[in-house]
Amino acid sequence: MSNFWTSLRGNHAADRERGSEGMENPGYCSGSFDGLHHPSDDDDDEMVDIAGATLDFSTTDDVPPLSSAVYEESNGTSRTAGMNGNGPSRLVDPLEDPLPGVGTYEDFNTIDWVREKSKDRDRHREITNKSRQSTVALLHSISDAFSGWLLMLLVGLMSGALAGGIDISAHWMTDVKGGLCLRGFWFNHEHCCWLSNETTFQERDRCPQWQSWAELITGKSEGPFAYIMNYLMYIFWALMFSFLAVILVRAFAPYACGSGIPEIKTILSGFIIRGYLGKWTLIIKTITLVLAVSSGLSLGKEGPLVHVACCCANILCHLFTKYRKNEAKRREVLSAAAAVGVSVAFGAPIGGVLFSLEEVSYYFPLKTLWRSFFAALVAAFTLRSINPFGNSRLVLFYVEFHTPWHLVELAPFILLGIFGGLWGALFIKANIAWCRLRKTTCLGRYPVIEVLVVAALTALLAYPNSYTRMSGSELISELFNDCSLLDSSQLCGYKQPANTSDTGVDNSLADRPAGPGLYTALWQLALALVFKMMITVITFGMKVPSGLFIPSMAVGAIAGRLLGVGMEQLAYYNHDSVIFKGWCSQGADCITPGLYAMVGAAACLGGVTRMTVSLVVIMFELTGGLEYIVPLMAATMTSKWVADAFGREGIYEAHIRLNGYPFLEPKEEFEHSSLAVDVMRPRRMDPALAVLTQEGMTVGEVESLVESTHFSGFPVVVSSESQRLVGFVLRRDLLISIDNARKRQDGIVSASQVVFTEHTPLLPPDAPPPLRLRCIMDLSPFTVTDHTPMDITVDIFRKLGLRQCLVTHNGRLLGIITKKDILKHMAQMANRDPDSILFN
Amino acid sequence: MSNFWTSLRGNHAADRERGSEGMENPGYCSGSFDGLHHPSDDDDDEMVDIAGATLDFSTTDDVPPLSSAVYEESNGTSRTAGMNGNGPSRLVDPLEDPLPGVGTYEDFNTIDWVREKSKDRDRHREITNKSRQSTVALLHSISDAFSGWLLMLLVGLMSGALAGGIDISAHWMTDVKGGLCLRGFWFNHEHCCWLSNETTFQERDRCPQWQSWAELITGKSEGPFAYIMNYLMYIFWALMFSFLAVILVRAFAPYACGSGIPEIKTILSGFIIRGYLGKWTLIIKTITLVLAVSSGLSLGKEGPLVHVACCCANILCHLFTKYRKNEAKRREVLSAAAAVGVSVAFGAPIGGVLFSLEEVSYYFPLKTLWRSFFAALVAAFTLRSINPFGNSRLVLFYVEFHTPWHLVELAPFILLGIFGGLWGALFIKANIAWCRLRKTTCLGRYPVIEVLVVAALTALLAYPNSYTRMSGSELISELFNDCSLLDSSQLCGYKQPANTSDTGVDNSLADRPAGPGLYTALWQLALALVFKMMITVITFGMKVPSGLFIPSMAVGAIAGRLLGVGMEQLAYYNHDSVIFKGWCSQGADCITPGLYAMVGAAACLGGVTRMTVSLVVIMFELTGGLEYIVPLMAATMTSKWVADAFGREGIYEAHIRLNGYPFLEPKEEFEHSSLAVDVMRPRRMDPALAVLTQEGMTVGEVESLVESTHFSGFPVVVSSESQRLVGFVLRRDLLISIDNARKRQDGIVSASQVVFTEHTPLLPPDAPPPLRLRCIMDLSPFTVTDHTPMDITVDIFRKLGLRQCLVTHNGRLLGIITKKDILKHMAQMANRDPDSILFN
Repeated sequence: MSNFWTSLRGNHAADRERGSEGMENPGYCSGSFDGLHHPSDDDDDEMVDIAGATLDFSTTDDVPPLSSAVYEESNGTSRTAGMNGNGPSRLVDPLEDPLPGVGTYEDFNTIDWVREKSKDRDRHREITNKSRQSTVALLHSISDAFSGWLLMLLVGLMSGALAGGIDISAHWMTDVKGGLCLRGFWFNHEHCCWLSNETTFQERDRCPQWQSWAELITGKSEGPFAYIMNYLMYIFWALMFSFLAVILVRAFAPYACGSGIPEIKTILSGFIIRGYLGKWTLIIKTITLVLAVSSGLSLGKEGPLVHVACCCANILCHLFTKYRKNEAKRREVLSAAAAVGVSVAFGAPIGGVLFSLEEVSYYFPLKTLWRSFFAALVAAFTLRSINPFGNSRLVLFYVEFHTPWHLVELAPFILLGIFGGLWGALFIKANIAWCRLRKTTCLGRYPVIEVLVVAALTALLAYPNSYTRMSGSELISELFNDCSLLDSSQLCGYKQPANTSDTGVDNSLADRPAGPGLYTALWQLALALVFKMMITVITFGMKVPSGLFIPSMAVGAIAGRLLGVGMEQLAYYNHDSVIFKGWCSQGADCITPGLYAMVGAAACLGGVTRMTVSLVVIMFELTGGLEYIVPLMAATMTSKWVADAFGREGIYEAHIRLNGYPFLEPKEEFEHSSLAVDVMRPRRMDPALAVLTQEGMTVGEVESLVESTHFSGFPVVVSSESQRLVGFVLRRDLLISIDNARKRQDGIVSASQVVFTEHTPLLPPDAPPPLRLRCIMDLSPFTVTDHTPMDITVDIFRKLGLRQCLVTHNGRLLGIITKKDILKHMAQMANRDPDSILFN
Repeated sequence: MSNFWTSLRGNHAADRERGSEGMENPGYCSGSFDGLHHPSDDDDDEMVDIAGATLDFSTTDDVPPLSSAVYEESNGTSRTAGMNGNGPSRLVDPLEDPLPGVGTYEDFNTIDWVREKSKDRDRHREITNKSRQSTVALLHSISDAFSGWLLMLLVGLMSGALAGGIDISAHWMTDVKGGLCLRGFWFNHEHCCWLSNETTFQERDRCPQWQSWAELITGKSEGPFAYIMNYLMYIFWALMFSFLAVILVRAFAPYACGSGIPEIKTILSGFIIRGYLGKWTLIIKTITLVLAVSSGLSLGKEGPLVHVACCCANILCHLFTKYRKNEAKRREVLSAAAAVGVSVAFGAPIGGVLFSLEEVSYYFPLKTLWRSFFAALVAAFTLRSINPFGNSRLVLFYVEFHTPWHLVELAPFILLGIFGGLWGALFIKANIAWCRLRKTTCLGRYPVIEVLVVAALTALLAYPNSYTRMSGSELISELFNDCSLLDSSQLCGYKQPANTSDTGVDNSLADRPAGPGLYTALWQLALALVFKMMITVITFGMKVPSGLFIPSMAVGAIAGRLLGVGMEQLAYYNHDSVIFKGWCSQGADCITPGLYAMVGAAACLGGVTRMTVSLVVIMFELTGGLEYIVPLMAATMTSKWVADAFGREGIYEAHIRLNGYPFLEPKEEFEHSSLAVDVMRPRRMDPALAVLTQEGMTVGEVESLVESTHFSGFPVVVSSESQRLVGFVLRRDLLISIDNARKRQDGIVSASQVVFTEHTPLLPPDAPPPLRLRCIMDLSPFTVTDHTPMDITVDIFRKLGLRQCLVTHNGRLLGIITKKDILKHMAQMANRDPDSILFN
């Protein structure tokens, strides 16, 4: 049963193996100096110096750039070899790859943003130049320019439609756990009773057409037997749905589990996980998300919707060459898709864009901002036209408040913020500990059983309490809701004031004493709070799609509502105390418990995810009133500060670290005072840096060097003695090119010289033809000096999206720093295991 | 009279002089090779090579970094000299500058973001380390952490209060042009009549307490004489206010003129303009803004409010060491202040933050996003508590629509987008041409006369037309407004349908035929449109504070309203045509002319400024309805595309270019295929790059080199023959340090050696003591290879905020690229005059 998972983990372990070796040049051996201290004929540096020419422009390999053709300012043709590996071939046609494979990436590797962006600019330049020549090319250029917008439109439409479908199916299936509609099994509870004529306003959710399972099976709707019958059916359906969900995930798309946001963050930072955003993941995630949500597990659909939207975007990218072939451009689309996901999840297009900007994206060019906004709007309007909740709103828990809040109320709001922060910190610690347990012990070997046990436990405990029995969104909707005049909800079970008839209808919305209904509700809510807090910790991270926006918000909303009702009663019984005097006179409607619930929800969500602006804007879009931003902001700020005091990582960063993804956090500052030389490889005791020389090495020598090491790339130097840097060659490109040359090019044997220079050196007449590889060399590798502080180096890596950076000292190559070296160094500095970083 | 202006321009010219020389190393002379071809004793590179050691770790000046102390991973102390100039001294206390002046900038220079950020991180690290030692230090650390939030709070409060004051005074002074309140001269027209009992609902703006100037002076309120009297008084006050405004600007704060946004963009990109955000600018800008707005000139207060908020922020920065001493940190605060400015201008905190992000800021860390949002909210609520318009809204033209729009209406909305784009492009071209005329001809010598002439012209033409007589915000408010049932406005002069009594009151909001009042209004509006379009072109850029949000929006709103009324009448008379059938039946209220006005305003503003997301969000916050985003977005998108087809620059970028500020546009891609070697200095025919050697030069030699050139910095190389780069020294730091050493250090004479190495070289016993300057050398200068494509180089400059970058070829120093070199190259590529870039 657990075969699949072990094989998956096995793969990861292999990657870990590979990862821990790749790109690490194993050190700089001080013992190897002796071997280098004799003068060598290959050292062009020395040769030139002896000849008296210090600016060695006379050697063929070191052509003075100023006298070469590049000085002529002609477009396009003067650029002999640029950042992307295929320089000269680009002069022919940059739209086509010369050698298939050169310039692409392997799975579980990091992309080079600079190279990808440069490739795209070359492509754009080529199209622009061509467009001046013919009308067809001009049309091609225009269609290319608008393909981004078309793609965004499609992403918005598809994600909006999928979200609508998920909403409707999840709603129906959640209701199926309770009973069926006789009028047609495809009607959900609400819809079924809407169509009924026998429904009264007071008991909106009762109608003869909707029959509980006890009624359907035994014909009785009341009594303990019916209750047990319904209870059992509830558990049965919960187990059924969750089993289907986990088995589908396991069989078809292992990547469909979890919320997906940690992985999407990592992918957007430039990592490659093939299949993570593929069509199987999309299909399975969509189906299993519905199943998981309907099963009653303590999870939400909001996070996974981001994953679904990103899958849509990735699949649609294949329709457009511009995005299919360029990893950097595709990530721009994925950033926009993340915004789309949140936009449909919360009906908050602006909040979605800010969420993508703040939480998910790594690079977010302003162009993308505008397109994301467009896509988010398209998705929101698609969803609205589907109208899944029948209220012409995009979310179940949309709410409008009418009563203003008072400055004194900031105190309870901040209290909620503290609660949210504490809970967030606690939740992250507990959930990570639990996930680590799952990873390291035998627990992780039985994911299906785990899901079934948790689902059974959830159903067993949830059914007796009406607040846990309902779905997360319904619960939040109920808690956010302001008690209106004729509200039948238990939460609005206030005693009618004695003088109702005197004061008239207008006053009945004012503060009232709590009645027995409300007290029952409060007790149930308190139990629900404890239950939700416990069960969410073990639910998040199971092998089913699971978001934690809704569970976090539910916890916060319960706490907030409890506090809100408490405040309301306090105000009712102490009208004349110092605190309430002046703003909350008797009979006035001064405290809105629903607002407290909303503030609590924001605080808890903020504590768990550490979102700030986007969270406040999402909540603002849920209420629509600018004045409620201040309470939300106060709570979110407090919650973030409190949670940060216990640990600066949000839940997504914690999961990224748990999984060992190579993610360089863009928000956190590097706080240590190390220098580049402390981080670079080779270390003091390691063997020397593996380099290629620009001439003098044979194909055989290069191949044996490549085979004896596992580095992803090799610096090319003028000569191994001078260590003056010429360029950088990627392992993959090198192997592909040599393979290709051996197969297709005449006379390339192991004894052929590999030449990286511009001009072929003079060879003995009997020598085999040389293999010219300048075209695959990156002529502009990034370098920093050994004295560069690491904070600056980290900044460069983050802002430019580098994969590696070479370290020089006074113009000589000294070592190399990769993204992984930095992450390992950071882990070491934080007293964590540096080997926890798994991939390249 | 024009003395002041000429002296100001004289200064600029001097800067231009200085600017055009600074930092340009005048080329790489190929003729100088001969002089370098003899072996030299100073060439350590060669010496080592002869000795057989290719990795020259044996020489004292080239200490192998791996064996030095830096390899020990101790915090703080291992870092001998970092990015910021004052390395060793930092070990003592990084919070204090060792030599006053080292590490600071001169006026009209560009800051080095990397250095500034590194300085701040060092400072932060020091405080964190200290905080573990004592409680006082811990408190200091906490107060330091919260100082950013406190600063934001203060900026929000101050800007909000100032904006409220400006709103109230401008409102009153605008009304003063028409008359006075007898009840008290400090009441404005609206307020005066509110307090009156004799005001009827129909004629809200007439009451006996408010007397026009004709009434006050002659006692008559009607007749041609009274009209002429009022006309003359209107012109008199307009001239008076504008004269005061221009004279105050001229006398006290020349920087207070214009909108300020181009300059703030430049400052935020890292340029230094001392006094631009000073207290005099703040005071004068606040006063003259009120005067300029009240004078009736076609300008708005929105852009200048951004400048005012930035001045507040800059002044408040002086209260906090963290921000006072660090140019990069201060710019983060200024970014937030820009958001505050828009937040109070439009009552749109989210839109303000997005405006700052999209339009103004250069670097916008996510931390700043959250703080900006906080500050924007504080400002909005401060302004709301002042309640300048008495409607508990932050802007005069807040509006709520109630009728949904239909898909067919997208066609006129897109038409408005095209109009907006065309007008935007035309306006930019015309305004820039006019401003260039002002700059180059004698027109610029008489700014006061210019302002008076334009003010007189504006008043003369504006008074007869009631739509131009009112202020810009009032006009927009009137145009946005939906005609309610009892609206007395001329724009709502519809004929009452004949069957009013039959259909009842409910129907009177439905489509109605236009009456004579409306036709008059339309004619007046058409004239107002032409007038506004003309006068705004010559107004923007005069020497008074002038924003163009309001004039642009007014133009768009007029056009939109005209089209909206046209559509409405079309629908009324063609209910049964194919277009309107099905959604606009007779008697239904299907077209909202106010929405058209709003869409038109967004389109024109978008065409002029090329804002996108922020514009839509600002407009969304003005209406509050998510569904109106789609029309706004369609119009804004169309407008941007149309305007971009005529020229990709917005008005602010165009003014930046006109003024020659060194602003590297972060949005535009570099589209040419040049290489770093094409852009770097020295050029082919220029003399060699001026470099310092790390040892062997005397103080006298260094001084003469510095004096004979005008470069802002000098690379330090191992030896002038090897050209291997060691570091980079800024001219200012060098001069300050030598000066200081000569004054305070014993034995430093012209013959003293200047030493940049770590260890002092062996000197003859009779030699004067050497001057050690390693501490002011930047040990980690940025380098790129000569083959680096310029698009990548530009990206590095933009993302890292560099001031200069050194160019190497195979490990040897070849040249230097400064920000200005890049801008000149870009100007050249775009066939513009490269000397138009004035400053460094």
